[in-house]
Amino acid sequence: MIPTITAFERSPDGGRGLARDMHVRWALEEVGQPYDVRLVSFDEMKQPAHLALNPFGKIPTYEEGNFALFESGAIVFHIAERHAGLLTGDANARARAIAWMFAAFSTVEPPILERTTAVILERDATWHDQRLPLVDDRIRKRLAELSRYLGDSDWLDGAFSAGDLVMVGVLRRLNRSGLLDEFPNLSAYVARGEARPAFKRAFDAQLAVAMAASNG
Amino acid sequence: MIPTITAFERSPDGGRGLARDMHVRWALEEVGQPYDVRLVSFDEMKQPAHLALNPFGKIPTYEEGNFALFESGAIVFHIAERHAGLLTGDANARARAIAWMFAAFSTVEPPILERTTAVILERDATWHDQRLPLVDDRIRKRLAELSRYLGDSDWLDGAFSAGDLVMVGVLRRLNRSGLLDEFPNLSAYVARGEARPAFKRAFDAQLAVAMAASNG
Repeated sequence: MIPTITAFERSPDGGRGLARDMHVRWALEEVGQPYDVRLVSFDEMKQPAHLALNPFGKIPTYEEGNFALFESGAIVFHIAERHAGLLTGDANARARAIAWMFAAFSTVEPPILERTTAVILERDATWHDQRLPLVDDRIRKRLAELSRYLGDSDWLDGAFSAGDLVMVGVLRRLNRSGLLDEFPNLSAYVARGEARPAFKRAFDAQLAVAMAASNG
Repeated sequence: MIPTITAFERSPDGGRGLARDMHVRWALEEVGQPYDVRLVSFDEMKQPAHLALNPFGKIPTYEEGNFALFESGAIVFHIAERHAGLLTGDANARARAIAWMFAAFSTVEPPILERTTAVILERDATWHDQRLPLVDDRIRKRLAELSRYLGDSDWLDGAFSAGDLVMVGVLRRLNRSGLLDEFPNLSAYVARGEARPAFKRAFDAQLAVAMAASNG
């Protein structure tokens, strides 16, 4: 059965692949699972039909017959559990890959989200210019810890895993901030993820949607 | 084998049970797994021995013989996978419980963390009083969505699960903000979690640590 995911009809990032459907597209490409995409508008995302799939009115969602799932982390994990390629069979290494998925979302991403929120929602606030450096320092703290841990390894824990997929996806949100450039091994780590053929296929697919929207 | 977790020697919350070891203690109590606790000071958390367990220098960590794990979400999931009581055997309901775990950490908690950061790190900033209501509105948005979804159900998806455990733990961080009171069904949901005998045992255990520290 071909699963269907949802994605923005018009992504606010204009095709930079920073929306969370990118995690799910990339995971599906890594395991070689074809999928359909249903595009939703901002208005549709807040309607009952979409809220029945995701109570927070966000994308992506995942449908497979009568089964529906939300939260990109949970969808990536669902895909990784059912296909080879994103989680090893070794129980301990599998648990550590899952730890990196949670670390990406609950330890590394929160200050990055805070930056996004500041730039989008508080850009015109009187405090914006003074406050942004404080937020950036909180991000730097996490990046420094991650950089020290990664060292000169290719991936976080041996072979590429769902943990790397999610972590690279989270770090990509910093692409235009300049912060990643301060940590060359993290920049190289993100570039390594972006160089994977599955990433490229996923990126091109979301870019095609953005291009169609901008021509529409 | 009895696992060992780490927790704050002196929790910044003074025993309110808001540190993330509480998620893990509660999960261990729900499944009836005895555990040992090793208390760590703020200084010890940044030393190589602890960083080898958690690259971000945070608590809790989880050790079971040579196996070590970090991130409270991943530890709760590890416990839930190995014991009955926190994840159902039904594959679809299990996937949805995992979705709620990710939703708690990556959708509901980020604005709550932003509030905590504002109150702790930006309390003296010139913008604090003007900005806090903006952060509170972002929290209200998520709470309203969660409240609408929960309705008059006891738990998020049928029986109590690891998803509820983590969501209640995340919402408890709002206890003193007054924000939860605006959503009576969410207040009742949190109270329902706190009334569970396993929660009470976990809460009392972390409170005993805080009391010992304040008498020390």
